[in-house]
Amino acid sequence: MQRASPNPTHEARPHGVDEPTYCCNGPMKPSTSSPRPDLTCTYHSVRALTESLAAPLDPEDQVVQSMPDASPTKWHRAHTTWFFEEFVLSGFDGYEPFDPTFRYLFNSYYEAVGPRQPRPRRGMITRPGVTEIEAYRRHVDSAMTEFLGGTRLSIEQAALVELGLHHEQQHQELLLMDALHLLSQNPTIPTYASRPGLSLQAAAGATSLIEHDGGLVEIGHDPDAPGAGFSFDNESPAHRVWLEPFAVENRLVTCGEWREFIDDGGYSRPELWLSDGWHRIGAEGWQAPLYWRSVDGRWQVFGLTGQSGLDPTVPVANVSYYEADAFARWRGARLPTEIEWEVAARLLACNSEESPSHADREAHADHHGQFFGHLWQWTSSAYAPYPGFRPVAGAVGEYNGKFMVDQQVLRGSSFATSPGHERITYRNFFPSAARWAFSGVRIAHDHD
Amino acid sequence: MQRASPNPTHEARPHGVDEPTYCCNGPMKPSTSSPRPDLTCTYHSVRALTESLAAPLDPEDQVVQSMPDASPTKWHRAHTTWFFEEFVLSGFDGYEPFDPTFRYLFNSYYEAVGPRQPRPRRGMITRPGVTEIEAYRRHVDSAMTEFLGGTRLSIEQAALVELGLHHEQQHQELLLMDALHLLSQNPTIPTYASRPGLSLQAAAGATSLIEHDGGLVEIGHDPDAPGAGFSFDNESPAHRVWLEPFAVENRLVTCGEWREFIDDGGYSRPELWLSDGWHRIGAEGWQAPLYWRSVDGRWQVFGLTGQSGLDPTVPVANVSYYEADAFARWRGARLPTEIEWEVAARLLACNSEESPSHADREAHADHHGQFFGHLWQWTSSAYAPYPGFRPVAGAVGEYNGKFMVDQQVLRGSSFATSPGHERITYRNFFPSAARWAFSGVRIAHDHD
Amino acid sequence: MQRASPNPTHEARPHGVDEPTYCCNGPMKPSTSSPRPDLTCTYHSVRALTESLAAPLDPEDQVVQSMPDASPTKWHRAHTTWFFEEFVLSGFDGYEPFDPTFRYLFNSYYEAVGPRQPRPRRGMITRPGVTEIEAYRRHVDSAMTEFLGGTRLSIEQAALVELGLHHEQQHQELLLMDALHLLSQNPTIPTYASRPGLSLQAAAGATSLIEHDGGLVEIGHDPDAPGAGFSFDNESPAHRVWLEPFAVENRLVTCGEWREFIDDGGYSRPELWLSDGWHRIGAEGWQAPLYWRSVDGRWQVFGLTGQSGLDPTVPVANVSYYEADAFARWRGARLPTEIEWEVAARLLACNSEESPSHADREAHADHHGQFFGHLWQWTSSAYAPYPGFRPVAGAVGEYNGKFMVDQQVLRGSSFATSPGHERITYRNFFPSAARWAFSGVRIAHDHD
Amino acid sequence: MQRASPNPTHEARPHGVDEPTYCCNGPMKPSTSSPRPDLTCTYHSVRALTESLAAPLDPEDQVVQSMPDASPTKWHRAHTTWFFEEFVLSGFDGYEPFDPTFRYLFNSYYEAVGPRQPRPRRGMITRPGVTEIEAYRRHVDSAMTEFLGGTRLSIEQAALVELGLHHEQQHQELLLMDALHLLSQNPTIPTYASRPGLSLQAAAGATSLIEHDGGLVEIGHDPDAPGAGFSFDNESPAHRVWLEPFAVENRLVTCGEWREFIDDGGYSRPELWLSDGWHRIGAEGWQAPLYWRSVDGRWQVFGLTGQSGLDPTVPVANVSYYEADAFARWRGARLPTEIEWEVAARLLACNSEESPSHADREAHADHHGQFFGHLWQWTSSAYAPYPGFRPVAGAVGEYNGKFMVDQQVLRGSSFATSPGHERITYRNFFPSAARWAFSGVRIAHDHD
Repeated sequence: MQRASPNPTHEARPHGVDEPTYCCNGPMKPSTSSPRPDLTCTYHSVRALTESLAAPLDPEDQVVQSMPDASPTKWHRAHTTWFFEEFVLSGFDGYEPFDPTFRYLFNSYYEAVGPRQPRPRRGMITRPGVTEIEAYRRHVDSAMTEFLGGTRLSIEQAALVELGLHHEQQHQELLLMDALHLLSQNPTIPTYASRPGLSLQAAAGATSLIEHDGGLVEIGHDPDAPGAGFSFDNESPAHRVWLEPFAVENRLVTCGEWREFIDDGGYSRPELWLSDGWHRIGAEGWQAPLYWRSVDGRWQVFGLTGQSGLDPTVPVANVSYYEADAFARWRGARLPTEIEWEVAARLLACNSEESPSHADREAHADHHGQFFGHLWQWTSSAYAPYPGFRPVAGAVGEYNGKFMVDQQVLRGSSFATSPGHERITYRNFFPSAARWAFSGVRIAHDHD
Repeated sequence: MQRASPNPTHEARPHGVDEPTYCCNGPMKPSTSSPRPDLTCTYHSVRALTESLAAPLDPEDQVVQSMPDASPTKWHRAHTTWFFEEFVLSGFDGYEPFDPTFRYLFNSYYEAVGPRQPRPRRGMITRPGVTEIEAYRRHVDSAMTEFLGGTRLSIEQAALVELGLHHEQQHQELLLMDALHLLSQNPTIPTYASRPGLSLQAAAGATSLIEHDGGLVEIGHDPDAPGAGFSFDNESPAHRVWLEPFAVENRLVTCGEWREFIDDGGYSRPELWLSDGWHRIGAEGWQAPLYWRSVDGRWQVFGLTGQSGLDPTVPVANVSYYEADAFARWRGARLPTEIEWEVAARLLACNSEESPSHADREAHADHHGQFFGHLWQWTSSAYAPYPGFRPVAGAVGEYNGKFMVDQQVLRGSSFATSPGHERITYRNFFPSAARWAFSGVRIAHDHD
Repeated sequence: MQRASPNPTHEARPHGVDEPTYCCNGPMKPSTSSPRPDLTCTYHSVRALTESLAAPLDPEDQVVQSMPDASPTKWHRAHTTWFFEEFVLSGFDGYEPFDPTFRYLFNSYYEAVGPRQPRPRRGMITRPGVTEIEAYRRHVDSAMTEFLGGTRLSIEQAALVELGLHHEQQHQELLLMDALHLLSQNPTIPTYASRPGLSLQAAAGATSLIEHDGGLVEIGHDPDAPGAGFSFDNESPAHRVWLEPFAVENRLVTCGEWREFIDDGGYSRPELWLSDGWHRIGAEGWQAPLYWRSVDGRWQVFGLTGQSGLDPTVPVANVSYYEADAFARWRGARLPTEIEWEVAARLLACNSEESPSHADREAHADHHGQFFGHLWQWTSSAYAPYPGFRPVAGAVGEYNGKFMVDQQVLRGSSFATSPGHERITYRNFFPSAARWAFSGVRIAHDHD
Repeated sequence: MQRASPNPTHEARPHGVDEPTYCCNGPMKPSTSSPRPDLTCTYHSVRALTESLAAPLDPEDQVVQSMPDASPTKWHRAHTTWFFEEFVLSGFDGYEPFDPTFRYLFNSYYEAVGPRQPRPRRGMITRPGVTEIEAYRRHVDSAMTEFLGGTRLSIEQAALVELGLHHEQQHQELLLMDALHLLSQNPTIPTYASRPGLSLQAAAGATSLIEHDGGLVEIGHDPDAPGAGFSFDNESPAHRVWLEPFAVENRLVTCGEWREFIDDGGYSRPELWLSDGWHRIGAEGWQAPLYWRSVDGRWQVFGLTGQSGLDPTVPVANVSYYEADAFARWRGARLPTEIEWEVAARLLACNSEESPSHADREAHADHHGQFFGHLWQWTSSAYAPYPGFRPVAGAVGEYNGKFMVDQQVLRGSSFATSPGHERITYRNFFPSAARWAFSGVRIAHDHD
């Protein structure tokens, strides 16, 4: 999954889909000078991956919205394009919007930009169709190529382009999450694609603990540090936190362990559950993770590559925070805070190498601890601003800050996270009841 | 709209869409002998019209379900095909179902056939896509051709084929209703097609009354009468009804009259409304018919041919029973019962001709009274069984009878009703709050 | 239950509650002269019965609203009082309203009177309390006594008083229905009262048919007929109807028969149900009549006198129209229309007596056919205006007409109907899904 | 409000209601020996206060549940009694439960105890009535008197009694919150009581900042510290936290300031709101705090003492977390974390006195900073377990821990908090949208 991965097959086929030609190598970097050939190159790589992810889906698949939280593929393709048009090109002299109505149709939630198509009704927009959205993408790509190549970009402009690319990468994963949810509604059990990289790999081995003695630690992203790459505003400021001693496990909870939880009455014992979770599983009739299906008394699991028998060695996916929390309680343990998670991820990297590059460290973490590239990991931390947090000025300041209530932080990345998009300080977030994200479970312990 | 219409333009372009080649002339007739070349011919004509109606819609348009009451175009195309597969071909020796899962996917509401995709989730079935549905239609058409041509059809078999064709014609109008509703959700104001025949024509002239002295009348369909054509089971038995003197108007209420109703506070005066209607318009914020839109203080009306300024001379469409009833009360009048409607429709025909053929009579009614071919007309009659009503045996007996509660009868036909589908005894029905049908209003009066 | 009943116990204890002193004998009659000592007398009798019905209920019981369709006892007591204040006393010179806010609090649905406490929030009005409502009743009773005794009433005034008394009688039965529903929510299985007259009596004997040859009949109430008593506007005009031959059974369906229906899979066979009914029983989990409870595998039935084992000989109560209709289909029969019901009720009376008085005829019907005094009987007739129906002018015209959609007519009366309130032309009505009314089932048949 | 308050009027009339005779002085203290005359005394004081709070409410007021989150007064009186019966007396030899059904009726949420009356349906239990609940309370009080006086209590037993008393004190405030909500539904604007102590006092003076330089602090409750009093399990363990420099204001936001916020478009500017908050105010139509009412263009505020004109000097009450957060953003500031709140509250106390007793310190905080006795104060901290948190064993372990998701912590206490119930480490919690709690706003600032 990761750029630095030694696994060439994995690298060659991110998401297991037709691979766009990558003309650039290495992470996206900030820059103060322009023109920016590297940004142009990255731009086209990221944009091409979106198209490649949409390719296995027919026009019919791309238009339907399977639930209010999900969006149609076509909408993802248009909205990510809108982002560049609205935040980058609209101020670019001579740019002609592709279609003025798109400003309304494909705004997601930016109140400062103006009114927009209501989120639960994104699936009503059957027109513009897939063909027209493709033309829209080409139109904006062409203007962006000119923009990136022909002008001297200010730091602010370059930062907005970079934000737009990370934004599109987020939507690449959302596109897969949403497509999976849509296909899961179909009683004919369709397959998104059958290539490698679209399903979970087995755990590397036995469980061990990553231990930490507590004390004062520093976490978060410092954008002023030398070599600091891109980050979202919610990862800053870097700041100190006092920790009690703790330990986290070096791998994710597996489907086999989850089956034991079910067999031990996990979904019918109220003492294991948060009160809200207990009411939710009753109201929704949850008896297993979202895509588990009991077929003739045996569990099958539905995924992007289709449906197959439960593999007890792969990480359990598509569980809510409520379920993750209940499982941890069943284990006599708990979930990690996001602070503990970040500290442990760094610790594993630092313990195993002398002076790792950033990329190498993350790669190593991946190999040893399943921190990255498998599943996002629920933490017990509610999504809240870091001390001294300041949203970015302007409409893009709505990107993160306004969602900081009633959500839980997830850390790491998943098999569906785009190459170059993951970071040790990355803060993903979903509501406690969400199950359609590629979410898994890592267990933590108090440590005396 | 009608086959016998003297208006060649109208005839040549039913629904204003690409016209399939009609190889047959005249209404569908029952028959006791087989093979049935005329049935084969009618079969292909009806089937071709469905495809022609779907043609202006892209795959994206054909898959989305805009509300639980509506169905995707693609579903209509498949379900009408399923009807022949399930009720005609499944008993035909050697027939291979196109895909066994379709029995589940495209059953509408036939409990006797088995479980089915829940109605509000028809829009989740993005696969099979439009292309596969087309193959499904070809597969069944081919088998039906063989079935109709090569065997000696029993009366029962011929009746099921004929029922299937009328069933498909009903879905042709539903397809247009549902497509219009879907397109109406789109803020870009798309157009279904811009051909003639897809919009309402202006009223012919001044209003006059069709009066009746009351007394014992006979209404309904007698399937045993000489020359009796096809009918649905809910139109029988023919039976006698005692009527008080009444009069109905010879044309439908127009948009101009409806605008007066609005301007006179029609939607804000509780004394005009049924209690349920008053609560509904408050809860839903109804201030005008479904597809009226106030643009810069002037009414525009959305339809299959797009959106344009209100034409005060055309019949008002897409109103609920509640609104029709309130309008009538505002006029100091009332809606007709379905009995009165049927009697008046016959009366108009009989007064103006000596010995009309059935087709001629209906054509005349159309010319003089807007009974057919404009809009379905709400009646004050709740949908209930006629005295002595017996549903057909078997699963097709679920066709009509099980809906006989909490619906109002509409009579006549609309501009979107398929050629050959209308009858003076036809009983259409919708819930009181439904507005997406092509429904209009005819006023009745007590008559002393 | 009925005034003319030969059963003194029944007569002495209407509703089985403390009996108010009746100073008058005979039905309420219209009159053209005043003062009206008989109206004064009837007024006090009716008003006293309301209080007597409320007496077994504590203040806590009287304030709670158990569902939006039901009203608190306290509200019934106040609203019936408001009716006299609003429609009779407000125009009476020198009358001082008890409390001006009551005009808002205790209006039910009279839009012409003004805004009102929303129906689903009647249970929020904990104040005024029971004591204050009693004072309100005394205040209005005192003014009414003066009004009835001291002035020469116009015909219109007398008619409004009479309407107010029949209105209060309707609320007497509603009070019992609503109280039963409230008590049924209580897991401690409380008892309203344990006196006779509050529960159903066993059927008299074997079933036989009341047959009719069809033809032209007259039904409904003619207010201009000699000796015509009170009626609601919806019972008029009397009018002619053509009937096909039919038969109705001479008694109601029993609990024993209903148990057979259940045991035969009645609630799990879709072919027996209207489509709306089938969906409703699934959504609500209905498996039996509203107040049947399975205790250790045996049916118990909850009622005003408490809970006891199912008695197979008493009429089945508290079933919806959907259930009544499904039962009839299971029996290979159907429900009667309201016309058939009225004709049969008259027929039974006329067959058995030479020249019965109105009261005697009804009494006889009761004895022989369970038409009155047991349970209201669902008919297959939707609630609609009779030909030529004209609502009363003014706010009281909202009494009946505005509810004429999506309701079914019930005929007869129940054990809880107040003495003197029933009529052969009486049209009660409830939505198809309503189960908390004292509703039962009579079976009809086509008759050749 | 507080026991140690120098304000005798306040002390004499907690909650402004009839004062029960206090036979004890000082806070509830843990003890290791028994019999416990002090516990007996405190028991009766607390129990008497509940009755005194219910006294202004009629039986009708005490039975109605105005929304699912609220409970009837009668239920609070019974449930607090059930707590002693279930957790203390049920193991007491020879104790006879008052009524076995109460175990079901008055369990709140203890899954380990068994099934219970569903929370949203607590208002359906009209019986047992107020009189029977009073008998229940006397029955349990009598048994508790015997229990407390006649046996040697174990530490565990004493702890459960103490927990039960603090539990009842929580319900005393809930009783007032819920009563106010119920009365607010009544269009007649009723008054709970008109005594002092039931409404908010004006702010003391000008605003100043309480500043802190950050660093390592310790917060939370250490039950093993010398002289440690009662606390709930969620306040422990005491633990260290690293803080950045911050400041909090020394008083609460006032109604006058809130009116400025409204006048400045506070409720119509999306940039001020969390996304969830913005959608909520739109969906619910919030334009002001819960109990503000615009009367002839001027704000009136409804409260326990009735409705009166807005006093700009008193703290604004009954706002949601969403509103508190938006107000802070409008001010260019933020809400404090619960850590900051606790540190500031201690700071204010320590700065102003040499060696204060615990009670004196809190009293001082009250006088100087409105930390206690006015309104609970929303913090930006999500309700989560402290590091090392362990719920109490057994059913009472459900008390706090299972609610630790999707709630925000409030700190301090309100005018309605019972005497002796408040603590500097106390963690109250409500969902972000809750407005019926006695909640107010304190502003914090980053501090450089």
